[in-house]
Amino acid sequence: MSVSIPAAQPLPPNVMDAMCPSRQVLEHVTSRWGVLVLAALLERPYRFSELRRFIGGVSEKMLAQTLQTLERDGFVHRDAQPVIPPRVDYSLTALGREAAEQVWALARWTERHVDDVRRAQEVYDEARAS
Amino acid sequence: MSVSIPAAQPLPPNVMDAMCPSRQVLEHVTSRWGVLVLAALLERPYRFSELRRFIGGVSEKMLAQTLQTLERDGFVHRDAQPVIPPRVDYSLTALGREAAEQVWALARWTERHVDDVRRAQEVYDEARAS
Repeated sequence: MSVSIPAAQPLPPNVMDAMCPSRQVLEHVTSRWGVLVLAALLERPYRFSELRRFIGGVSEKMLAQTLQTLERDGFVHRDAQPVIPPRVDYSLTALGREAAEQVWALARWTERHVDDVRRAQEVYDEARAS
Repeated sequence: MSVSIPAAQPLPPNVMDAMCPSRQVLEHVTSRWGVLVLAALLERPYRFSELRRFIGGVSEKMLAQTLQTLERDGFVHRDAQPVIPPRVDYSLTALGREAAEQVWALARWTERHVDDVRRAQEVYDEARAS
């Protein structure tokens, strides 16, 4: 008689597991600048310099890193035109568009509710000051 | 003749503006641990120690900071029970639930698409290795 050992089943992806690759993908999509790059590109393709102006506060280095991460993940398409001076356009892939739509909705939600949050912050701070 | 100067209209909230309070709110909601705390609390209230076990990789300090930020923003309700040993439950407010639903959907989306992302990463890395 032999005992058959069932093959290990891969665990389903779970962002709560620090070792799960989906955790890393979530971190890219929700990174400080990743969120804003995805939301911006949902409107239209952008050149690097335009994107840098549009997203307030982003450094050239952080924008380049963020775009590279999102390109590697398959969310952003980089189109380098062979012209002088060089021109590089960034746009969303189909996969990136799906992520961007959700991120964009969250960004719009925070804009709509910023006053609720500020009131909550005031109440919290007053309760602790007294 | 006098020239009337129109009163300055407050700008509508805009996350692309680094100075806009909505940018900060978006950063709280999409912070590394904020995302996971909101997604976890969407299922049910949690005690601190339970939440720390549930969210893989979070330190006690980062979890405490994240919960405090989300409480101050009005997203999380902290309920300290006067019992021995002390017991503190965390749950979502109505506002927090709205944010959490969107964050949860994004987390589920990344879990569903992690294989697409890994394939894109392989293609990207191979193109650069050759």
